[in-house]
Amino acid sequence: MTRTLIHETWGDHAALLARSASAPSGSVGVVQPQVAVVATPDDPLRLEYGGVLEHVSVTYETYGELNAARDNAVLLCHALTGSAQAAGVHPSAPGQREVPGWWDPLIGPGKAIDTRTHFVLCSNVLGGCYGTTGPSSVDPATGAPYRLAFPRYTVRDMVAVQRRLLGTLGVESLKAVIGGSMGGMQVLEWAASYPECVRSFVAIAVGARHSAWAIGLNEVARRAITSDPAWMGGDYPVGTQPEAGLGLARAVAMLSYRSVESLEAKFGRERVSQTRELLAPSFEIESYLAYQGVKLVRRFDANTYLYLTRAMDDFDLAEGRGRLKDVLKRLTMPALVMGIDSDVLYPEREQRELVAGLPNAEYARVRSPHGHDAFLIEFPQLAARLRRFLASLE
Amino acid sequence: MTRTLIHETWGDHAALLARSASAPSGSVGVVQPQVAVVATPDDPLRLEYGGVLEHVSVTYETYGELNAARDNAVLLCHALTGSAQAAGVHPSAPGQREVPGWWDPLIGPGKAIDTRTHFVLCSNVLGGCYGTTGPSSVDPATGAPYRLAFPRYTVRDMVAVQRRLLGTLGVESLKAVIGGSMGGMQVLEWAASYPECVRSFVAIAVGARHSAWAIGLNEVARRAITSDPAWMGGDYPVGTQPEAGLGLARAVAMLSYRSVESLEAKFGRERVSQTRELLAPSFEIESYLAYQGVKLVRRFDANTYLYLTRAMDDFDLAEGRGRLKDVLKRLTMPALVMGIDSDVLYPEREQRELVAGLPNAEYARVRSPHGHDAFLIEFPQLAARLRRFLASLE
Repeated sequence: MTRTLIHETWGDHAALLARSASAPSGSVGVVQPQVAVVATPDDPLRLEYGGVLEHVSVTYETYGELNAARDNAVLLCHALTGSAQAAGVHPSAPGQREVPGWWDPLIGPGKAIDTRTHFVLCSNVLGGCYGTTGPSSVDPATGAPYRLAFPRYTVRDMVAVQRRLLGTLGVESLKAVIGGSMGGMQVLEWAASYPECVRSFVAIAVGARHSAWAIGLNEVARRAITSDPAWMGGDYPVGTQPEAGLGLARAVAMLSYRSVESLEAKFGRERVSQTRELLAPSFEIESYLAYQGVKLVRRFDANTYLYLTRAMDDFDLAEGRGRLKDVLKRLTMPALVMGIDSDVLYPEREQRELVAGLPNAEYARVRSPHGHDAFLIEFPQLAARLRRFLASLE
Repeated sequence: MTRTLIHETWGDHAALLARSASAPSGSVGVVQPQVAVVATPDDPLRLEYGGVLEHVSVTYETYGELNAARDNAVLLCHALTGSAQAAGVHPSAPGQREVPGWWDPLIGPGKAIDTRTHFVLCSNVLGGCYGTTGPSSVDPATGAPYRLAFPRYTVRDMVAVQRRLLGTLGVESLKAVIGGSMGGMQVLEWAASYPECVRSFVAIAVGARHSAWAIGLNEVARRAITSDPAWMGGDYPVGTQPEAGLGLARAVAMLSYRSVESLEAKFGRERVSQTRELLAPSFEIESYLAYQGVKLVRRFDANTYLYLTRAMDDFDLAEGRGRLKDVLKRLTMPALVMGIDSDVLYPEREQRELVAGLPNAEYARVRSPHGHDAFLIEFPQLAARLRRFLASLE
C-alpha cells in the first residue's frame, strides 16, 4: 500500500464517504448544483461591516421535494472548507474528485434526514469558493477577481444571503436548520436572526462565540498564508496558490481538528525514513500533514480562507443583541445541541453553555477519539440523534 | 496601561520572576556563567546520528557549594528555549533583559532546592544558542557559524555532554536530576543512560516519547521558519533572523503551551481595534501572539529552533533499549513524576504511563489553568512537591 493510500484510508472524509456511497440504496444519486441570483444593483446586499455587493449569486443543491404545505424544508449549513454538496455525487465539482457530499451517509431516502419526507437544501456560503460570490469571483465592475477588494463579511451576512435564497425558492419556514462547526455558527445566527422562520435547530461542535484559542489558531493560519511570498498581497494569478502558506495553514488546522489520542493511535512514531537530514520528513505524521495541505491547496482558494476564518473569529451570537443569556432565552424553538467528547477546538463546555441558556434544548454527546472532525466521521451516532430529534418534531 | 504592559504582566515569565526576585531574601544573587570545554580534537564527541564534534564548549551555572563527600549535587535540565540561567540574575545575558533565571523562585537559600545544602548545576544544552556549542556557534574549521552544517543531535547526545561536564567538575553522583518538558526528556535519558550516577529524578510534564501531535506541532513550526524567505536556506546573516517565520513558529507553540481556558479567561474576545481591514489585528489574542513572536525573535536563533525541535521529536526513551516496559523497570531509583491537569501538549496520560512503569515513582498532579507552561508558573505547588521529595531522600 502506498503512503498516499494509507492517508486516504484513515479518517479521510472522501474515503469514508466513498465507502458509504457504495451502499446499494439510500443515495440521492447524481445531483446538479443550481445557481440563484440573490442581490442585484436594484436590490444590493448591505453587509454588517458596511460593504455593499450589487451582484451575489448562490450555488445550492436540493434533495427531496418541497411539499404542498411548504413546511418540510431542512436547511444544512456547511463548515469552513465545505460546499453546497452535502449529499449525492456530481462529477463536475470544481477541483474535487467524484466523491459524495460531506454528509452523504445522513441524507437520502430512508436515511436520518429522509429525503422521502424532507426537502433538504444546502448552499455554498457567501464569500465561499464553491460557486457562491466570494473573493475568488470575478468583480463585474473590473472583470477581474475581487481578491482582497471583496468586502469583509460575517456569519450573519452568510445567513442573510441564505434567507434571500429561500425567498427565491418560496420557502418561508424551516422545519430545521442543521450544521456543525462554522455551519453551527450559521445555525445559531439563523435562530437569532429569523426566529419566525426556524421551527427547530441542530447545532453541533460549536459555541456561542469564537474563543481566544480558536481565534489564535485562525490567526496563525492567516499569517502562514500572508507570509508566503507566492500570496503576493492577495494578487496571486488565477490558477496559482500560495501553496506553502495555505498548506501550512491546513496543517495547523488539522492538528486542532483531531485529538492527541487519535493521531497517536494512527501514527504514533511511525517513520517515513531514517534520514539524518534535519529537514527531510522523518515521521508519518509530518507526511500526513503535508499531504492534507496539498489536498486543500488543490481545492480551496487561499484568499477565501482568510475571509472565512475572519468571519468565524468575528462570530459572537450576542454581538449587538444584548446579554448572551437573554439572547439564548429568546430562542424558544426545540433545539438539539451536540458536542464531541474529544473536541479540543470547540470543547463540550461551549455546547453545555448553549444548552444551559436555551429554554428548549437537549444535549447529546458524541463519543469519539477523532476530535472536532468527528462531526464528519461518526455517522452512526449522528444519524441516531438526528433521526430521533426530527421524529420528535412531528 | 499600554498593551505591551498588559502582555508583560500576564503569565509572563519575566514579570512573574521579577516579582519573585524582589523578595528580600532567598536569592542566589548575581551569577556569572562559566564555560567548560568538553570535547577536543583528541577527545571528540561522537553523536547518535553519526556526526562528530571536535570542539564543544558548555556554558553552565552553579549555585551553592559541592560538599566534601561530593554527594549533594542536583542537576537541572532546561526546556526548549531555556538557558543555563536557572536562578539568580546576570545582567549580561545575551539578548535578555535583566531578569532572574527560569526557576528562580525554587532555587536559593531556604527555597525548595536549598542552595545552603545543595550544589545546583544547570548547563545550556548541546546545540543550544545560550553559550553551548550549537548551530549558531562559529565552526573553527571555517571561521563562520555552523548553521545547517551543524550535525544532527539528540536528547541522548545532550545528556552525554552534561555527563562530560560533570566529569570536569569532579561530580560523579547526582542526588537528583530535575527538569520539565524538554528538560524532562533529559532527565529520563539521564536515568536510563547513567543509572549509576542518578540517585533520584524528577520528570515534569513529559512522556516516554514525543507523541504524533507534538511532532506535528513542531513540524508546523519548522515549516513556518523554513518557508520564510529571510531564512535563506539557513544562511541568514549574523544579526538577522527569519522574523516572520520564527514569530509564527512561536505563536503555534504558545497556543499549545497554554490551554483553551486560560487564554479565554485572559483574552476572551477583547478587541484591539474595530477595523474593517481584513488583515489588521482585531483581537487581543492576535496581538499577544505577535508580541510573543517578537520576543522570541530577539532572543533565540531560528536554526537552533529547528535542531532542538528535531531532537524533541526524536525523543523516545525506549529507542535502542528494548521494550519501554523493561526500560522503565530498570530505573529503580526514587522518582517524582509531575503532570499538569490542563496540559494538552504532554497530557497527564503520558506521565501516568511513566509512573505505572517505574518501580519506585510517585505521581504528583499540578492543578493549573495554564496548560503546559504551568511548570514555569505554578511555583508554590512545584516548591511543595520538590521540597518534600528532596527531603525524602535524606
